[in-house]
Amino acid sequence: MTEPLDLDAVYSFAVQLGKDAGSMLLNAAQARYGSSGYHYSIEQKTSEVDIVTQTDQDVEAFIKHQIAMEFPSHRFIGEETYSRGTSRAYLIDHEPTWVIDPLDGTVNYTHLFPIFCVSVAFCFNGKPTIGVIYAPLLHQLLSVCHGRGAWLNENTRLLLANNPAPPPLPADAPKDCIFSCEWGEDRSDQPDSNLHCKIASFVNMAAETSGREGKGGMVHGIRSLGSAAMDLAYCAMGAFDLWWEGGCWEWDVAARICLLQEAGGLVTTANPPNDPSIAPIEDAKLGSRLYLAIRPAGDTVTETERQQQERVVRQVWGRVQQLDYARPGA
Amino acid sequence: MTEPLDLDAVYSFAVQLGKDAGSMLLNAAQARYGSSGYHYSIEQKTSEVDIVTQTDQDVEAFIKHQIAMEFPSHRFIGEETYSRGTSRAYLIDHEPTWVIDPLDGTVNYTHLFPIFCVSVAFCFNGKPTIGVIYAPLLHQLLSVCHGRGAWLNENTRLLLANNPAPPPLPADAPKDCIFSCEWGEDRSDQPDSNLHCKIASFVNMAAETSGREGKGGMVHGIRSLGSAAMDLAYCAMGAFDLWWEGGCWEWDVAARICLLQEAGGLVTTANPPNDPSIAPIEDAKLGSRLYLAIRPAGDTVTETERQQQERVVRQVWGRVQQLDYARPGA
Repeated sequence: MTEPLDLDAVYSFAVQLGKDAGSMLLNAAQARYGSSGYHYSIEQKTSEVDIVTQTDQDVEAFIKHQIAMEFPSHRFIGEETYSRGTSRAYLIDHEPTWVIDPLDGTVNYTHLFPIFCVSVAFCFNGKPTIGVIYAPLLHQLLSVCHGRGAWLNENTRLLLANNPAPPPLPADAPKDCIFSCEWGEDRSDQPDSNLHCKIASFVNMAAETSGREGKGGMVHGIRSLGSAAMDLAYCAMGAFDLWWEGGCWEWDVAARICLLQEAGGLVTTANPPNDPSIAPIEDAKLGSRLYLAIRPAGDTVTETERQQQERVVRQVWGRVQQLDYARPGA
Repeated sequence: MTEPLDLDAVYSFAVQLGKDAGSMLLNAAQARYGSSGYHYSIEQKTSEVDIVTQTDQDVEAFIKHQIAMEFPSHRFIGEETYSRGTSRAYLIDHEPTWVIDPLDGTVNYTHLFPIFCVSVAFCFNGKPTIGVIYAPLLHQLLSVCHGRGAWLNENTRLLLANNPAPPPLPADAPKDCIFSCEWGEDRSDQPDSNLHCKIASFVNMAAETSGREGKGGMVHGIRSLGSAAMDLAYCAMGAFDLWWEGGCWEWDVAARICLLQEAGGLVTTANPPNDPSIAPIEDAKLGSRLYLAIRPAGDTVTETERQQQERVVRQVWGRVQQLDYARPGA
C-alpha cells in the first residue's frame, strides 16, 4: 500500500536539499581559490567535451542518501549514476521519482565560471511537480511546486501573465527576441549532422529579415551559456525570450519545465512539424530530448499569453531544422 | 604645469568609484523587482540591437561628476556621451584619461540576466594603467593597477604564470579550449559580411578536427554572453581560454586588457596576417576594434606561458576570417 503524498513536506525537503547540495558545490569551488591565486583543476572524461569532477559524484551520493533516508519508497534517477549505466531507457512513470543533476554546467564549474547549479526535480504521475535549482555563485535559488507559484530566492514570484503582467512577446518575433541555444557535443562536419543543422538554424534566426530567402529572423541577441539547463532557467525567468535545443536529458530539464510552466511559459518540441503554421502545439514530452521554450508573456488587448507564445513557436519552427537526438540504446 | 600623478590615490579612487557605480546599477535593477513579480522594462534605441536605459545615463553622469571633482585636469571618455556624438576619432593620447562604460551588457541588464557590469579604466601615456570592473549581481569586483597585480574581490589574486601556476593551455588547442565569441549587430546576409565571416570562423573552431578541410578546431565549448567585455573579463580570469571579437570600443576593453595583461594573458589582433604561422605577434592596439585574447597559462617543462599563448594565437589565426570593423567617420 502506498503512503499518501504530503506535497508540502516534499517541497520543503526539496528546497533544503537544493540549498545543502549547492553549498557543497560552493565549498568545493572555494577550496580551489588558493590564498595566493585563482585557478582551477580539471579531469578529463573519455568524451572530449565532457568533464567530470569528484564533486559531481559526492553531491549526487549526498542527495541520494538524503532522499533514501526521508522517502525510502521513492525512486531515484541521478545524472552521474544514469550516465555510467548502459541503458538509455526513459524511467519516469507514475511513481514518485526524484530526478537529480548534482552539478549542471560541469565545465563552467571547473573553470569557475558562475553559470552552474544543482538541480532537484520531483515527478509524480509522470509529471515534474516540484523543482529546485540553486546556482550558488549567482546567489539564485529557484523553486517551484505545481500550484504554488515559481519563486526566485523564496521571496520574489517569477513572471506570471497577470500578476503583474510581464512584457508581451515582440510583435515581429523572433525579431527583438533574446535567443538562447548551445553548440553541443556533436561536431560532425557532415552536411546533415546536428552541428550543421544547428548552424543553419542559428544563422536563420540571426540574419537580417530580408536575408536567408525570407527566413532571416533578426533576433536581438544570441546567448550560449554552456549549460542548456541554465539557458532554460533564464527563459523561465524572462531573461531570455526563447530557447531551442536538442539532446537534453530528463535531469537537465525536469525542474525547469515545472518552473517555466508554473510561471506561464510554454514548452514544446524543437523539431518543426511538416506544416509549422497550422500543426497543433503540444506540450513537450519529458524524455523526448527536443525542446523549444517560450517565456511567460503578459496578455495584450489583441493577444493572450498563449496566443503570443504559439505565434512565436510557429515563427521559430519555420526557421529551424530537424535535429536528430534519438535515445541511444533505449 | 602638470601635477604629479599619485597612482595609488588614483587606484583607490577608481575602486571606490566602481563600487559606487555598481551599487547604483544594482539599486536600479532591484527597484524593478516588484514585490509581487519579477519583470523588466525596456526602451528601444534606433538600432534594433541596442537598448539603452536611463540608468546608463545616470551612472555615466555620476562617474563623470566624481572624476571632475577629484581630478579636474583629467580627460573623460564615456560610452554614453561618445556614442551620442558624431565623431568616431580615437581620443586616447599620453594625457591622464578616464575611459568609462557605465553599464556594460545593457541588454542583459534590462532582462535581469546577471552578466552586466560597470567598467572604469584609467589610461596614462596611452596605456590602460588601472582597471575596475564591478558586476554587482555576480558579486564580482575585478581590479588592477599596472605593477600591483590583478585581483578578484580585492583579496584573491588572478592567475599568474608562477604564483601558483594556472593550468597550461591545451596541447592540441584550440581543441579542449573554451572559446568565447559574440554574434554581434552586423546581420547582413551578404557573403562577405561580418556575420558570415564570423559564422565560418565559429564553425571552423567548433567542427571535428578531421572536418572543414583541416581547419576543424574541436573546441571544448563555445560561449556567448551578450557582452564582449564580460567575455574578455572571464578570459582574464581563466574561465574562458580564448576570446575572438571585432567591433569593440575602447570602453569595452581598456580595463580588461589591463587586467588580462597584468595576470599574464596575451591580447593581439583578431584579423589573421597573411602568414599566420610566422607573422610577429604584436600587442593589440587600443582603438583597433579587433581583438584576440588568450588567458594566462602556467609554464611547462617544454613551453613558457608566452610560447603556449603564441602557439594558440597562430592556431586561431589559421581558422578565422578577416573582420571589417573600421572606425566609421574617424
